[in-house]
Amino acid sequence: MISNINKKKIIVTGCAGFIGSHLVDKLLAINLHVIGIDNYSTGNKKFLNKAFKNNKFKFFKSDLKNLVKLKKIFKGSSMVFHFSANADVRFGIKHPRKDLEENTIVTYNVLEAMRKNRISKIVFCSTGSVYGEPNKFPTPENYSFPIQTSFYAASKLAGESLIQAYCEAYGFKTWIFRFVSILGNRYSHGHVYDFYKQLMKHPNYLNCLGDGNQRKSYLNVNDCINAIILAIKRSKKKVNIFNIGTNEYVNVKQSINVICKYLKLKPKIIFTGGKRGWVGDSPFIFLSTKKIRLLGWKPKFTIKESIIQTIIYLKNNKWIFKKRK
Amino acid sequence: MISNINKKKIIVTGCAGFIGSHLVDKLLAINLHVIGIDNYSTGNKKFLNKAFKNNKFKFFKSDLKNLVKLKKIFKGSSMVFHFSANADVRFGIKHPRKDLEENTIVTYNVLEAMRKNRISKIVFCSTGSVYGEPNKFPTPENYSFPIQTSFYAASKLAGESLIQAYCEAYGFKTWIFRFVSILGNRYSHGHVYDFYKQLMKHPNYLNCLGDGNQRKSYLNVNDCINAIILAIKRSKKKVNIFNIGTNEYVNVKQSINVICKYLKLKPKIIFTGGKRGWVGDSPFIFLSTKKIRLLGWKPKFTIKESIIQTIIYLKNNKWIFKKRK
Repeated sequence: MISNINKKKIIVTGCAGFIGSHLVDKLLAINLHVIGIDNYSTGNKKFLNKAFKNNKFKFFKSDLKNLVKLKKIFKGSSMVFHFSANADVRFGIKHPRKDLEENTIVTYNVLEAMRKNRISKIVFCSTGSVYGEPNKFPTPENYSFPIQTSFYAASKLAGESLIQAYCEAYGFKTWIFRFVSILGNRYSHGHVYDFYKQLMKHPNYLNCLGDGNQRKSYLNVNDCINAIILAIKRSKKKVNIFNIGTNEYVNVKQSINVICKYLKLKPKIIFTGGKRGWVGDSPFIFLSTKKIRLLGWKPKFTIKESIIQTIIYLKNNKWIFKKRK
Repeated sequence: MISNINKKKIIVTGCAGFIGSHLVDKLLAINLHVIGIDNYSTGNKKFLNKAFKNNKFKFFKSDLKNLVKLKKIFKGSSMVFHFSANADVRFGIKHPRKDLEENTIVTYNVLEAMRKNRISKIVFCSTGSVYGEPNKFPTPENYSFPIQTSFYAASKLAGESLIQAYCEAYGFKTWIFRFVSILGNRYSHGHVYDFYKQLMKHPNYLNCLGDGNQRKSYLNVNDCINAIILAIKRSKKKVNIFNIGTNEYVNVKQSINVICKYLKLKPKIIFTGGKRGWVGDSPFIFLSTKKIRLLGWKPKFTIKESIIQTIIYLKNNKWIFKKRK
């Protein structure tokens, strides 16, 4: 079905994560054997409920820092979707080692485990933040040489670069996806999560980082997964890089409006001020998705629809605010 | 004298290296206190002969992987020239971990040791290889988003990115230099070294990697050091990135001609063939140096002069072929 994904086992790292678990469901739905790896540090066992019922799914609770174990788990597989990451963008400044360790060094481990097992195809989740603070919007994939503004983006760019070197050196093939923020079911961190959590506690006011004018693009997780599968199917270069996002963006104030209107709340909004929500926050993220659209993909959900879907999910899954395991 | 370099102690990592040792001599010559660090893995004690006679120079034989020790050594310093690196570009494919470890992770250690000691200025040696295989020549600093082709360049770009994140997060300031290949006194690895070594052994033939048409730009180490000092003096942004090179390039065949003519040899040249000398070798490196020239810098040596200076140095320092310590 997917020409670049054959019938052998597919590895998904970070399989219990927000995006990873959706990918697992999709791969199983198209009848592939999936080996999922997660250490449940931020991933959630419940996200795999459906997968656990499928006998084509095998799960390893393991940390990617353990290269020896990784090499064993990868045995006999044909392709790796490396979706594990420290996605805790905002707190990079509190622990710069975490991004280096969990996004860069761990990517090296994944690549080495692949090399050991003669697996040569890797799909990598990167981020639109690797463009830093660009001057061109929407920002295309080949935009000017970037300057990094966050530990998260720096560690992801390092991951991209390492993968590219493996492609050149050992005949690897890669699909690298630079995402905008993803929304939808199983969403468990980010601004909609924070805002909803606050409004549950105190419906009459809302604290908002920055001045509320930060402009961001968002994509529904289902659109994201479809984009990934389609891009792998239709692009066969050595290094394939795609932005994934919608053709629109909203600012934080607009996002708050959608949330509050849906919840029928009129909280007082208290802004902390400043162009950025936190150190390393990019005030404007809007990616050109022309390249992947030319392959025939387009998103089904608008940003507004995705925000509402996310709120509905959070409303129906309040356990997510209590424990993450 | 140098406005961004104050009178406190200056750290130079990789101080016994080819470029690092020239930097040490220069900093001592302008009357600064220098703390040099090297593990002598590729650095050379003899390169510090002059420095050791200067009481403003203090040396620590230490490995940058040791963060605890690094934090102690950095105490009381005002600025770091991070010149230590695995510069063994050609053999990256044999040990991908080495570049990650010695160029990326070690840069993190340097940054953490700085943060601990409230040192916020870092000068970083990067490489023109971070542009991958660009389509524009000479290649400017803000050229298109790069795709990496070697472990060396990937690890250097990761280093650049990490430094930039520290600048954003902790108010660091950086000067990042992307070099072409450097030639001159104390040159101890690279194509001139390899060719001269071969010709000493067998003057009648010369093995050459690739088809001899690889085009590269070269810069004299003295010009390189002057460029660094001048750029620090005259550029004061948060992140200052400069290409350093000459306005010319030569191909490998031309380089061989210069060497053989000077040595009065007419060896048979045996090419291994192929556009690249090795996996990850960029067939054409030619950097735009407009940005640094606008600050008032220009190189004093032509490529030909630098090749000959290098050959004379190697002729007079044959010990360099025997042992590196």
